[in-house]
This record gives sequence, structure tokens and C-alpha cells, in this order.
Amino acid sequence: MLHNDQLEHWDRENFFHPSTHLAGFARGNQPHRVLTGGSGCHIEDRDGNRLLDAFAGLYCVNAGYGRAPIAEAIADQAKELAYYHAYVGHGTEASITLAKMVLDRAPDHMSKVYFGLSGSDANETNIKLIWYCNNILGRPEKKKIISRWRGYHGSGLMTGSLTGLELFHKKFDLPLSQVVHTDAPYYFRRSNRDQTESEFVAECVASLEALIDREGADTIAAFIGEPVLGTGGIVPPPEGYWPAIQAVLERHDILLIADEVVTGFGRLGTMFGSDHYGMRPDLITIAKGLTSAYAPLSGSIVSDRMWKVLERGTDENGPIGHGWTYSAHPIGAAAGVANLKLLDSLGLIENAGSVGSYLNATMRDALTEHPHVGDVRGEGMLCAVEFVADKVGHRFFDAADKIGPQIAGKLLEQDNIIARAMPQGDILGFAPPFCLTREEADQVVAGTVRAVTSVLG
Amino acid sequence: MLHNDQLEHWDRENFFHPSTHLAGFARGNQPHRVLTGGSGCHIEDRDGNRLLDAFAGLYCVNAGYGRAPIAEAIADQAKELAYYHAYVGHGTEASITLAKMVLDRAPDHMSKVYFGLSGSDANETNIKLIWYCNNILGRPEKKKIISRWRGYHGSGLMTGSLTGLELFHKKFDLPLSQVVHTDAPYYFRRSNRDQTESEFVAECVASLEALIDREGADTIAAFIGEPVLGTGGIVPPPEGYWPAIQAVLERHDILLIADEVVTGFGRLGTMFGSDHYGMRPDLITIAKGLTSAYAPLSGSIVSDRMWKVLERGTDENGPIGHGWTYSAHPIGAAAGVANLKLLDSLGLIENAGSVGSYLNATMRDALTEHPHVGDVRGEGMLCAVEFVADKVGHRFFDAADKIGPQIAGKLLEQDNIIARAMPQGDILGFAPPFCLTREEADQVVAGTVRAVTSVLG
Repeated sequence: MLHNDQLEHWDRENFFHPSTHLAGFARGNQPHRVLTGGSGCHIEDRDGNRLLDAFAGLYCVNAGYGRAPIAEAIADQAKELAYYHAYVGHGTEASITLAKMVLDRAPDHMSKVYFGLSGSDANETNIKLIWYCNNILGRPEKKKIISRWRGYHGSGLMTGSLTGLELFHKKFDLPLSQVVHTDAPYYFRRSNRDQTESEFVAECVASLEALIDREGADTIAAFIGEPVLGTGGIVPPPEGYWPAIQAVLERHDILLIADEVVTGFGRLGTMFGSDHYGMRPDLITIAKGLTSAYAPLSGSIVSDRMWKVLERGTDENGPIGHGWTYSAHPIGAAAGVANLKLLDSLGLIENAGSVGSYLNATMRDALTEHPHVGDVRGEGMLCAVEFVADKVGHRFFDAADKIGPQIAGKLLEQDNIIARAMPQGDILGFAPPFCLTREEADQVVAGTVRAVTSVLG
Repeated sequence: MLHNDQLEHWDRENFFHPSTHLAGFARGNQPHRVLTGGSGCHIEDRDGNRLLDAFAGLYCVNAGYGRAPIAEAIADQAKELAYYHAYVGHGTEASITLAKMVLDRAPDHMSKVYFGLSGSDANETNIKLIWYCNNILGRPEKKKIISRWRGYHGSGLMTGSLTGLELFHKKFDLPLSQVVHTDAPYYFRRSNRDQTESEFVAECVASLEALIDREGADTIAAFIGEPVLGTGGIVPPPEGYWPAIQAVLERHDILLIADEVVTGFGRLGTMFGSDHYGMRPDLITIAKGLTSAYAPLSGSIVSDRMWKVLERGTDENGPIGHGWTYSAHPIGAAAGVANLKLLDSLGLIENAGSVGSYLNATMRDALTEHPHVGDVRGEGMLCAVEFVADKVGHRFFDAADKIGPQIAGKLLEQDNIIARAMPQGDILGFAPPFCLTREEADQVVAGTVRAVTSVLG
């Protein structure tokens, strides 16, 4: 569509977009899209397209688009007081109320919440707090962080190191040396096809034990994991995985960080993935679902036992040397309060559980038998379809064929539905807003079947 | 004041405040303050206090509090579309317009802007981009970053390493090994009291040259510096410093990052500190002044020559593996557009220059002769007063005496004026909103004189 303005020109001339082919975009060979509005599960662009966003932005607009109560809370806060810092005991009614609401919803053994802006910065905070605590506890060598291949924990230098995906490492000299990786709990991609799920879990555990032995438990501070692997492929853990991993960590006095940026505040149909899988983390990372992305806000929820060490640390050393100018930003805090209230009042977490189950079951029924569909999996309002070149021989497509991106492209082109081609493997991911209806779930499944058929026959 | 609610209790029970004595706050021994509004240079709390904020939050509320046009832009964007991501060429009218406005204001040789949330994350982005570029250019060993002692570049793991202040390193195992520090250009604290300013600059240059020799120029990728040292003590550079440093960097093919989180968009009375001091950076870090803190937003402005390498990188390797969910968040972008327009329409940058000069001159006249005032310095709307135990012998107070914090405390208590006791040294810092009037500047100076007299006689 032609527009009587320079917006596309300005965009290509000035705007460095994340995760984009920079040269292609500047040359005009990559798509440019200007979003103008949204409602429920749909977004609109200025060319008049109305798209069903089955990935909720980047699995973050959990409450759905166009929610007036959240927008009004932001507007009211902006007019009352858009900003003051939270250093040295300063706050706003919104930030204090949100801290209380987060702790009311968190597992009982959690004590305090530090607010940041993004999941990445919350994981930075987590590592800093863990290192600080182990210095206070007099074990300065216990500092390495174990993460998993295919984990996603951010895009910074250290947080991109925690992330276990090649795209985020290549050409960036990551991972940094403080991070070591262990196996992804990805049963579908196990190397020994004869393994049962419980045998595979035992292998993950043995592999972790071997890593700890090799590095020395006295050098390892923490283990970080998403309850369900997210950007690494949307992979729920095999049965019994978390209790088995947690037993190893406890035996070696290694802290557990549950990265709940994707799962926190309801995506699995439960408040936290930690509740869902019986994890007992020392730190919980929160972001996306905290505000449904209406304003940037993240958090690190700290357990009682870590908090006690932090208190001892400030008694011995004075105020803690950590803070962001925009920690607990009032606009984000106001959005968070309104969002958490809305999730409750509309029963959106229950809906994520029930419609999520329906979406997963329907997708499984529709695609499991397809000769190039290797796996349909999910939990709550997360679902993934993984494609294979050869189902019997368990052979994958060549990455250069871009089967996943092709199918996502067809789905958008044919049915105006947004799903995400996950970055590693040919995996189509779905993470709709929690307000998805069964009718919308049916549309998503029908469109996906059409797209798969278009590309793979 | 007694309140008929639980806010203070909730605060102490749940809220992990940045840069706070955690144990003291939880016990009730540290102040708790709930902010409720603001206008111009003043903020209000719910106990009915109205305070003149001579530090503009954390030198960020540059346009002043209570600006309706910025609040309305946020409100409108929240109602239209609070969020969609900016990955793969997506944007909003606000984010694209802001990219154009930033480049219009940046030095001519700058090409694109990547939007983040905080100064810390923008500096993470900067390091990632530099490492990426040097990999594309086939010089994988050229990766270390030189920063200065007393520089402030963030509070993350790598960005806290760039920061050259003990408070941010101690107990956190920082700096990481990829960062090396050189001298602070802090003429007042020179060790050789007989040096002229130009001799001192020559010493800074020689020290940098020696560091580069020692490490090897082929291992050093970049040098990062604030045009004026900020949190390290509000220290303008000695005459001739930046051209001399820049000549060294050019000779060794070392990139320059100008961290303009404090100085960008007018704090020195000029659009950028880079203009002000004739710096020619390859990357400019922006944050606070971009939105006057009304919503979180930061940026990395990339030069033409770096952008060309980034384009080559994506032509060779595909889309760049870097992005934050909240890159170019629409709410922040809307705030940025409205803020930059307001700075222009109200002539606030000119006011920062003229009233800033007045504040500095008045402060200097009022305090230079005081026996415990060693230095009064500043530039634009930045001013600092540094205290000494012995003026002639150039001896400092014992840090344990907390002279700076005591004076800041008195200023607040006696005159309801907020200044900041800078974290290293007994330095009282001022960084008011750009709308400060001469009358308010007079109040700040008079209050400061009273506070200094109360504490030091």
C-alpha cells in the first residue's frame, strides 16, 4: 500500500531492528510492517491487515491486545508521576503494591522481589546476587553457572552465554567462560531411540553429575533452567525430570534459578512453572507475563534463604552496589498491577489451561499422522510442531531448506495467522494470548494444516 | 505520618530496593518514601512533602516532572497499541519516527539506532556489536574494552565491569577479564599537585599508551568514556583531553564509545557531549534524556563505518542474533518522540546551558572560599562540590565520616532540596531538570551553603 509519508524510508534509513538481516532490510529486501492496533488475539497494521497473533508478540501479550484497564492504569500513572527512582527505599504505591502481589502469587518460600526491565537484565541480577551471596558465605570459588543447551535466558553477554543456542553465540564470542552447558531435556531428539522417557531422564541426570564431577561442585554456584524449554523449541520436560535434577543440585549445594519469563503468571495454566513441576527454586526470573508486555518490567524473586545472606551482606558491607535507573519504573509497575488483576478477574489463567489443552489436543489429532510431522507437543498455552525429513529414520531436514520459516510464511500468507519458526530446528511454535477461544484455536489448527500441506504436501 | 493502609509494611516485607541497605530497610531503620506526584523541578510524597529535586531523579527527568504532552503521548500509545515487537522489520509509527529524530540530532557520521531499555543494556549491545564487527573483520583477538577508573557504564556483569567504582565491583567479582581500566581524567585529584592541566592530560595520554603497549593494540577493540564523568564524581575533562585521547585511539585502530546516557539530549547545553568536546565516536550510548525517564528506553547509535561491517556480517551470516523482547517498546518510543519535541518547543536545552552556567557560577562564588570546599566544578546543568579535610595539604576526609551523605541529608532536612552524595569521595552532585529557573538555582545554592555550614562549620 502506498502511504503519503516517509515512514518506510525513515525505517530503512535509521532503525536497527533486532534479529533482522540488517543489510537486506536496509536494501528493502526484508519486510517492513507498521503496527497500529490490536484487540484480543488480533493485531492490525497500517496496510489494513488484521492478523491472528498465535505467538502473543514474543509470548508476552498474555492478557491479549487492547486491554483498556491496563492502558488506563498506564495513562493514570503517566499523568500522576511517570518516574521516580526506587533507590534507597523510594517507591510508588504501584511498585510497592506490585511487590506484594508478586510475592502473594509466588511459592511460599520466596521472600522479596527486585524489579528490572527485561528477562535478560533479571538474569544478570540473578548471577550478581548469587556471586555476592557465595562471597558472603566465604566460598569465592563457587561461581560457575550451569545452563542447558537450547535454554534461552537472554541476549546480553552473560545472559546470551546462558542461552544455549548457536544463533546467539556465533560471531559474538559466547559463551563466556563462567557458563557451562549440560544436556537439553529434549526427549524427541534423544540420540538413543530405544530409550524410555525415564531412561532418558536418568541419562540427563548422569550427564549433569558427570559435568559437576568434572568441574568440581565447589566451583559451581547455580543451575538455570526454564520449566519448559522456550525459544530452544518449546519442549516440556520429560516426566520426572525436575525432581531428579533438583535432587542432584541439592546434593551438591547448587542453587536453582527457575527462568519463568515465559511460564510465569499463567502460561502453563498454573501461576508458575515451578508450581507446575514441583520445582523449589532459589531465584525465579519473571518478565513478559508480569505486565503482558504493556510496559517493560522484569523481576528476580529471591528465596528466604538467599535473602538472609543478602541481609548479612549489607550488614557487613553497607548498601548493595546494584541498581538500574529504571528499576521498578512506575509505568511498568502500574501496568503490572492492572495486568495481574485482569488475569484474575477474567479467569485468564484457567483459560490458558483449558483452551491450551484443547489447542494441543486438536493440533495433535490434526497433524500427528502427517509423514513429515515428527512431534506435536506442548503444555498449557504453549504448543509446537516439529518437522522431519524422514519419520521412520528420524532424519531432520537440512537447515538451509528453511522448512520451519517456509511453513510460518505460508500460514501468515494464506490465513493471516502468526506463528513462530523457532530458531534452531524446523519447529513451528505457538504461544497465543491466554484469551484464545476454542474457535480461534480451531482456526490456528486448520491454518497450520493448510500451511504444512502447502509446503510439505 | 500515619496512613490507613499497609503500604509501608508491604514495602519492607516484599520490595528489594536497588542500592539500599537491605537488612536495614527490612528492619525499618532505613527511610521509606512513597512518591505521589511532581511538577517542574519538584516532587511530592504522600506525607505532604514537596521537594526540589536538584538531581532530576537520577539525572534523567530532564524535561521536568508533570509534563502533560509526554504523559498524553504515553496514554495514547497505551490505548492504541501498547506493544508489538520490533524483530524482523516490525515497528510502530512512534519507533520509526523516533529513530529518525535521534539520527537527525546525532553527529553526521552516525547511521542507525538500536533501541534497548537501559544504559546498561545499551552498553551490552555496544560490546556485542564491537565483538561481532571484529570477528567479521577477521581480527578475533581484538576484543578487550578499555574503560576509565570512576567511569560509570552500568550495573550488569560486563557493564558493571566497565564501571570503574569500587562499590559496583566489591563482592561481585568484577571487573571481568575482558575489561581493563585506565586513569580517570580527574585533574582535581591528580597525584602531582604541580602539574598544569595540559601536563596532566599528557600524563593521561602516556598512561593510556602504556596500557595499550602492555596489552597489545591487537587485543584492544574499544575505549568507552562519558564525555563528563558522571557517577564517578561529576568531573568535566581537562582542556584538550578528548582530542588527545582520540588521537591515540585512531593510531591503534581502537573504536570509541561515547557513553552519553547522562549528557545526551542536552544536559551540557548542547545536543550531545560528543559535539561539545569534538569527539568522533563509533557508538553513542543513550538512555535517560531520550525519554526524560517517562518510560524506559535506551539506544546504541551506530556510525556509518560500523554499520557497513554489520551489513557485511548479516550478508555473510544471516539475521543478527541479538534482540530484546522490549527493543523499541512502543510506550518508550512514544515518550521519546514527545520528549524530544518538548525539549525543542520549550527551548529546554538552551535553558540547561544558560541556567546551568548560572548555577555553576553562583555555586562557585558561594563556596570556593570555604575552608573545606576543595573544588566546585561543572558543565551545563551538571555541578559538583567536593569537600576536603585540609585544603592546603589536599587531604580528604575519611570515607567512614560520610561527610558527603551528611551534607546531602542536611540539605534535604533543612531546605527540602535533593542533591546526591556521589558514591566515591565526599562529593555533592547536582543535575537538575533543564527547566530549572534562576530563582530555583539560587535556592539550591543558598540551601547548599546552609547545609555545608551546618556540617562543616
